[in-house]
Amino acid sequence: MSKLSVVTDMQPVWFPAHKEGQEFREESDTMGSVQVPADVLWGAQTQRSKDNFKIGGERIPVPVVRSMGIVKHACASTNEHLGKLDSDLSKNIQAAAREVFEGKLDAHFPLVVWQTGSGTQTNMNVNEVISNRAIQLMGGEVGSKTPVHPNDHVNMSQSSNDTFPAAMSIATALAVHDRLLPSLSYLRGHLAKKQEEFKGIIKIGRTHLMDATPLTLAQEFSGYVHQMDMSLKRSQQALDDLYDLALGGTAVGTGLNTHPKYAETVASHVAELTGLPFVTAPNKFESLAAHDAQAQLAGALKTVALSILKISNDIRLLGSGPRAGLAELNLPANEPGSSIMPGKVNPTQCEAALMVCSRVVGNDAAVALGQAAGSTFELNVAKPLLAYTNLQSVYLLSDLCVSFSDKCVVGIEPNRERIEHLMQSSLMLVTALNQHIGYDKAAAIAKLAHKEGTTLKQAGVKLGILTEEEFDKWVRPEDMTNE
Amino acid sequence: MSKLSVVTDMQPVWFPAHKEGQEFREESDTMGSVQVPADVLWGAQTQRSKDNFKIGGERIPVPVVRSMGIVKHACASTNEHLGKLDSDLSKNIQAAAREVFEGKLDAHFPLVVWQTGSGTQTNMNVNEVISNRAIQLMGGEVGSKTPVHPNDHVNMSQSSNDTFPAAMSIATALAVHDRLLPSLSYLRGHLAKKQEEFKGIIKIGRTHLMDATPLTLAQEFSGYVHQMDMSLKRSQQALDDLYDLALGGTAVGTGLNTHPKYAETVASHVAELTGLPFVTAPNKFESLAAHDAQAQLAGALKTVALSILKISNDIRLLGSGPRAGLAELNLPANEPGSSIMPGKVNPTQCEAALMVCSRVVGNDAAVALGQAAGSTFELNVAKPLLAYTNLQSVYLLSDLCVSFSDKCVVGIEPNRERIEHLMQSSLMLVTALNQHIGYDKAAAIAKLAHKEGTTLKQAGVKLGILTEEEFDKWVRPEDMTNE
Amino acid sequence: MSKLSVVTDMQPVWFPAHKEGQEFREESDTMGSVQVPADVLWGAQTQRSKDNFKIGGERIPVPVVRSMGIVKHACASTNEHLGKLDSDLSKNIQAAAREVFEGKLDAHFPLVVWQTGSGTQTNMNVNEVISNRAIQLMGGEVGSKTPVHPNDHVNMSQSSNDTFPAAMSIATALAVHDRLLPSLSYLRGHLAKKQEEFKGIIKIGRTHLMDATPLTLAQEFSGYVHQMDMSLKRSQQALDDLYDLALGGTAVGTGLNTHPKYAETVASHVAELTGLPFVTAPNKFESLAAHDAQAQLAGALKTVALSILKISNDIRLLGSGPRAGLAELNLPANEPGSSIMPGKVNPTQCEAALMVCSRVVGNDAAVALGQAAGSTFELNVAKPLLAYTNLQSVYLLSDLCVSFSDKCVVGIEPNRERIEHLMQSSLMLVTALNQHIGYDKAAAIAKLAHKEGTTLKQAGVKLGILTEEEFDKWVRPEDMTNE
Amino acid sequence: MSKLSVVTDMQPVWFPAHKEGQEFREESDTMGSVQVPADVLWGAQTQRSKDNFKIGGERIPVPVVRSMGIVKHACASTNEHLGKLDSDLSKNIQAAAREVFEGKLDAHFPLVVWQTGSGTQTNMNVNEVISNRAIQLMGGEVGSKTPVHPNDHVNMSQSSNDTFPAAMSIATALAVHDRLLPSLSYLRGHLAKKQEEFKGIIKIGRTHLMDATPLTLAQEFSGYVHQMDMSLKRSQQALDDLYDLALGGTAVGTGLNTHPKYAETVASHVAELTGLPFVTAPNKFESLAAHDAQAQLAGALKTVALSILKISNDIRLLGSGPRAGLAELNLPANEPGSSIMPGKVNPTQCEAALMVCSRVVGNDAAVALGQAAGSTFELNVAKPLLAYTNLQSVYLLSDLCVSFSDKCVVGIEPNRERIEHLMQSSLMLVTALNQHIGYDKAAAIAKLAHKEGTTLKQAGVKLGILTEEEFDKWVRPEDMTNE
Repeated sequence: MSKLSVVTDMQPVWFPAHKEGQEFREESDTMGSVQVPADVLWGAQTQRSKDNFKIGGERIPVPVVRSMGIVKHACASTNEHLGKLDSDLSKNIQAAAREVFEGKLDAHFPLVVWQTGSGTQTNMNVNEVISNRAIQLMGGEVGSKTPVHPNDHVNMSQSSNDTFPAAMSIATALAVHDRLLPSLSYLRGHLAKKQEEFKGIIKIGRTHLMDATPLTLAQEFSGYVHQMDMSLKRSQQALDDLYDLALGGTAVGTGLNTHPKYAETVASHVAELTGLPFVTAPNKFESLAAHDAQAQLAGALKTVALSILKISNDIRLLGSGPRAGLAELNLPANEPGSSIMPGKVNPTQCEAALMVCSRVVGNDAAVALGQAAGSTFELNVAKPLLAYTNLQSVYLLSDLCVSFSDKCVVGIEPNRERIEHLMQSSLMLVTALNQHIGYDKAAAIAKLAHKEGTTLKQAGVKLGILTEEEFDKWVRPEDMTNE
Repeated sequence: MSKLSVVTDMQPVWFPAHKEGQEFREESDTMGSVQVPADVLWGAQTQRSKDNFKIGGERIPVPVVRSMGIVKHACASTNEHLGKLDSDLSKNIQAAAREVFEGKLDAHFPLVVWQTGSGTQTNMNVNEVISNRAIQLMGGEVGSKTPVHPNDHVNMSQSSNDTFPAAMSIATALAVHDRLLPSLSYLRGHLAKKQEEFKGIIKIGRTHLMDATPLTLAQEFSGYVHQMDMSLKRSQQALDDLYDLALGGTAVGTGLNTHPKYAETVASHVAELTGLPFVTAPNKFESLAAHDAQAQLAGALKTVALSILKISNDIRLLGSGPRAGLAELNLPANEPGSSIMPGKVNPTQCEAALMVCSRVVGNDAAVALGQAAGSTFELNVAKPLLAYTNLQSVYLLSDLCVSFSDKCVVGIEPNRERIEHLMQSSLMLVTALNQHIGYDKAAAIAKLAHKEGTTLKQAGVKLGILTEEEFDKWVRPEDMTNE
Repeated sequence: MSKLSVVTDMQPVWFPAHKEGQEFREESDTMGSVQVPADVLWGAQTQRSKDNFKIGGERIPVPVVRSMGIVKHACASTNEHLGKLDSDLSKNIQAAAREVFEGKLDAHFPLVVWQTGSGTQTNMNVNEVISNRAIQLMGGEVGSKTPVHPNDHVNMSQSSNDTFPAAMSIATALAVHDRLLPSLSYLRGHLAKKQEEFKGIIKIGRTHLMDATPLTLAQEFSGYVHQMDMSLKRSQQALDDLYDLALGGTAVGTGLNTHPKYAETVASHVAELTGLPFVTAPNKFESLAAHDAQAQLAGALKTVALSILKISNDIRLLGSGPRAGLAELNLPANEPGSSIMPGKVNPTQCEAALMVCSRVVGNDAAVALGQAAGSTFELNVAKPLLAYTNLQSVYLLSDLCVSFSDKCVVGIEPNRERIEHLMQSSLMLVTALNQHIGYDKAAAIAKLAHKEGTTLKQAGVKLGILTEEEFDKWVRPEDMTNE
Repeated sequence: MSKLSVVTDMQPVWFPAHKEGQEFREESDTMGSVQVPADVLWGAQTQRSKDNFKIGGERIPVPVVRSMGIVKHACASTNEHLGKLDSDLSKNIQAAAREVFEGKLDAHFPLVVWQTGSGTQTNMNVNEVISNRAIQLMGGEVGSKTPVHPNDHVNMSQSSNDTFPAAMSIATALAVHDRLLPSLSYLRGHLAKKQEEFKGIIKIGRTHLMDATPLTLAQEFSGYVHQMDMSLKRSQQALDDLYDLALGGTAVGTGLNTHPKYAETVASHVAELTGLPFVTAPNKFESLAAHDAQAQLAGALKTVALSILKISNDIRLLGSGPRAGLAELNLPANEPGSSIMPGKVNPTQCEAALMVCSRVVGNDAAVALGQAAGSTFELNVAKPLLAYTNLQSVYLLSDLCVSFSDKCVVGIEPNRERIEHLMQSSLMLVTALNQHIGYDKAAAIAKLAHKEGTTLKQAGVKLGILTEEEFDKWVRPEDMTNE
């Protein structure tokens, strides 16, 4: 060990560790009894998982926990409706489940991502919390499993193997629907506004980073707007696949221990609760065993991230300077840029974009391996990883779009003088001459102007290829953009 | 250097190097003149590229070259139609371009992938070959650029920056349409045929690799069929984005030097030639600068690869043995499996699948970085990499689907005796009892049977939880699959 | 928006948001004044960053913050020693810095990873907190920058561009040294202990998942032990590169505003504080602009993860069953395995390993893109991402090694009866005959035995190739392992 | 199918397909007889593989085939030496093996990468060719397996499972040793020469792409040189792990059917033949089952690629222009840059670098998955993929280093006038004032100069913070670089 250790937890522990004077109660499962803090609603299996998986600090994402609440609510309601679950029990399970999905019980879900690959321990965490909470509501004794048993009642007609994938689908679908799509639209809107503003500003184009023929700044931004339009389309396509719910597959996809009408009914309850078009998955075997929809989502998010990276990289390069860069754009100065260089301002939002997009691309790789190595026979066992990773990507991209819009795009100003100066100096305006004098002669003019540091017009006249009048007629940047 | 070098070219050089007694002719470009082998149709810029990029042996894929032939044909035809190109020149350019896309001139395209990032040198290779071939057809002197100039006529209304992306789109679209989709359907069909055959074969399910409740072998294969259905859908969605053609954007996306009707007309020519629904891209700036459609394709191919990997991994595990594995399936014995272990047979097609799928996932990562690092301002400069990489993935997956179908899936036989034996021995049949005796008592039965190595029935009776008759009535594998 | 949103923060907000009755004080920077909660030590730039980067919830890892404390301590001490900083100021800065690296001020570092790519805002966060704390210690007014100025004194001879990389190096080096290496050794030790225990247990080998020639269980585990040995070596090699400190490079690597002896002196102070062999980097331009050492670390961690994945995958497959799998190993039953299947036990630690290793491989990809897209000219601007990502990998792998050792490896028991049974049934024992009767005849025996379901001995005798005595003499599993 | 298919093989088929009038002979293996073209030396198993794996066109790399020749030579020699193989047979096997490693029989190895994951079919291809060639040399009948049997003699003491990994080790080690290391040194040398040339050229530094404090162009290049030094170190570390040979492990690592002295002896023969320090692997179980050394190599190559990418990206950005970019460097004009823009010159070598480096990063991902999904029990079954992928990376990087050196680095010229102009205009020279007037006042000067478009000196005087004389004394770029 080093003399001085700063190696501690990367993330502050969210849930208080052992407290002074902490009291305990006994909870049990099929393996025996376990001591659980007296003031929590979780039971034996949750406690075992806490003790067995001391790995990292990344908890099961809150959206997954709450989505499990939706699942449990819909299942209880369906079981009651199909005559399998006593109405009184069902009502109380639903009430407790509602507290879960409304976030009132967040503190009772302490488990980490790096647990059982099926998410069984989180499913049991939810079963235990709802069981205990429903028991409380019914005036019973917490931990007694009576009158609401975590397996027999809360988990009725269910398995971790179909509830956890359903919660993954719900959590990612809601996140894409409620966060990503609006955020992408938001950024799209801000870019489109700039496109509108930037019409008529003729600037030099750059290909291979080298001077090329002109276009307008609006045209440059129109490419970004189109990238965002396609990002919306790709995200929507990936979302569509998330609406298939695994519920009704139970342990291996056959639907053992479920009512024939269960799968469709429970999906319609989820659709009703969320207002989104969830349906029962057409093939439950695939739903449990292979999370291709999550892999596809990861790939779509990667493409979206690459689109945003292109846009933000262009913007930071166009804003480079102020004196020794391209300096065509002025970006908002949000904060002092340097602890040593006074007055420095940096394209910090673009850098945040760069880091977020890198993370999202890495997340795609993590999902791919979790999918590849974890999918065997009737169950993929990398479920918590897939959920955590894709949700992180969705959240980061969503937040980024808003931040990048509000703190950067909205304040971008063209440096008109500079833009005009660079455009006019460009040798690639010569391209307009191709149609009049042919590529080879046009090249001769450009080469001479480059060699002698003159204008194209001077070079063309000197070479005797054209007159000043011809040059002025043929080489008109405003005619070259087709805006 | 090591004493003994086996380090040579990884791939046999496809085009003959300097030949004894090789004769040369002079070709020229705007940089001066260059010696070119007398018997080839390429010109100065191709020769320069051959000399400047001695990197690897991976040539620009033949499908890209031939797609460039389609592009040049459509452009000449459009230019003629719009009155910009002399009809006689156009006819001869089209004739030469036809020879390119029909593969008659493949030998005249010697350039490697690792060249200019815009593919300019391949565009010029095509321009030069078509120019020279058209000159030949018109009885002129090869290399004279008269009467058909590679830039002024063959490349009229074009830039590398829009022709190369168009060729990328055409080549990948044709490959997905003509190779991948039929191959995926082919594999889907073979898997569906097995699903049909395997109905009624009840087997043990496995979750976490551990014994679980039963399902039929047909149900297991139905999951694979569904994965292929989704693979077809995802490939089709990615294909749709490939139909947008960059043609008409020329240098930076503005369409400089093109006729107002050019972009739409040329796209319709390509659609006509290929029979596929190509259209002009709605935004040319994006088409040149960012190849998001290729990135999305790479991601979709990755998802498809992961689906196939799941299927082939399951099959090789189910076929493991013959005596010390799972041995539920017998796979075809295509070849002796070992140079040292006589009589050994291995799941070799599944292993080829594993390697192909790994390559495709790696290709997705290569495309992502080429897209991320190569897309700046008005031009992405990783175009040849993107085309090569995605085409490799499409070809490998397509070939794999056919090979895996013909040499593996078609010959899979269930080992019925073994399947029945394993299913009957499973302790997880106990799950059917949940609804009758509750989870906790069912667990007690399973645990006792496991501990004492008995059957569930014996354990249940011994514990006094149920009678033999009840057990036989409640635990019926044939009722547990819901097939 | 969906009807019911469960989309909330993925991680509980660690630092209280606006509190009822919160009081504020004014802090300022070169851009003006900012309201800051009265009870925190951070200043204007930190507050700006909090407001400007509302992206995700992933904070700058605590180890990085504390390592910044080490940096600031060493810098103040060096500046004092070289006569640039007043002794009294230095002492108080060091005292405050000590509180930072001892973790007493963790709550004052609220910034997220997705900020400026140089980590400037975290450097300023540290400068501001130390400045204010030192001012407190000296009886001054918090926020007054007097007598301790965050830039002029705390940041003296420094830039974010060299302090943040130094903190990255220190944090990752300490984490590798204090957490990863001991954890790898720990797992290595547990595997070696099993290797020792498993001597003499002859089992069937499996290649291509198919039955192969025998080896001992100890030999199988010896491969795992060797993988851990190599993991230790590779981690150590990556660690060696982390000892080069960027300090002394300041803004662009030239060391502007530093004393000629500064770089070496400050490195020796860090070495002294930590007890690890930190030195000044041989080239500061590389240290600021390209974090190849972090990329190399990510690659090494990826290789380590793949090694652990191999080991844990083997173990979960060997433990599959209990009745319809390989069932050669019994893994510890740590928790009930299923919410629906009573009595089920799963290889949950192996699944956690699968997810952690997938995450680490994905992290390598994130680092690669952050390095590729973020390294330009004199500064890489993906620093917080690189630090966060590599630290996550180190922590997860370290925790995993301990958890996997304690909750799985330590309790692995061989199922001797099953192992013996499978080994004896294997047809691949025939390989021992190659040397006596040749490959082709041996193959004939194996094929007949396979076809007729008999033993090798029966087949060999039936074919008239050998006698029972010869078979018994030549085919002796205990002679085939060379243990 | 589309109307017009350009979808053909991506790579020209290297080995002639069925020829008109082709004659055949019969070859056989344990599965029966097969028709083989009369003029090839391969046998039945090779032919089966050709027929069974019609996937892609990527052949087993020639270096692997030739390395198999080295392996077979060393094995025959060792077997003879240890008294297991008749001397006459051994001599002829060695003679044939020599022809293999000298490349004389390259045409007889037609198999693709996408075959058995153990490379068994390539091992048998080598066994068959050497057997037939040795039979020819001894005047026997090709295909008769007499007097030289492909399994019993050529493959004596061997398995595919140890020979193929050995060939992988040899091929990659030779490629790294003979190609990569010299190429990296070559590029390092060219960069160092430029560093020497560029001393004293003071230029603006850029952090966050924004103007920063000055450094010399030599200092900037010194960072690149250091990156190459580290690339050499990392490649050498990865090479060291490749020297461990699997030979002597045979089928599962136990060394069944080998002489006790075999493993060490055969390794020394390989070392003798190649002149490189090959040794027998300390643990054969790991050598067959997990190719961590190849994964580590892939990771090291990725880091090297990222280093080169940084260098080439900087160079192309510094060379951007000529009039609207940074234009600090003039890069060699190797070819016309555009088919439409006359006179354009592009940083094409840098773009080739970008594509090669992207491929290498993708190759690392492919290797990771091949390692993760292919390593089970006693055998990794992604061996051909790993060999092909890593060799491609080594070759591409090696070629790139030479091409990039010769066609780009060697011809880089500084644009001194431009460099001086940009440097002098920079506001970040203000940083030198920190030590004299403090950060806040320095910032005020920079901000005023930026706002009013004046020089720093003018702003400083106007603000009354310093005199012209003080400014001239304190702000001296030549004092700010510490060169």
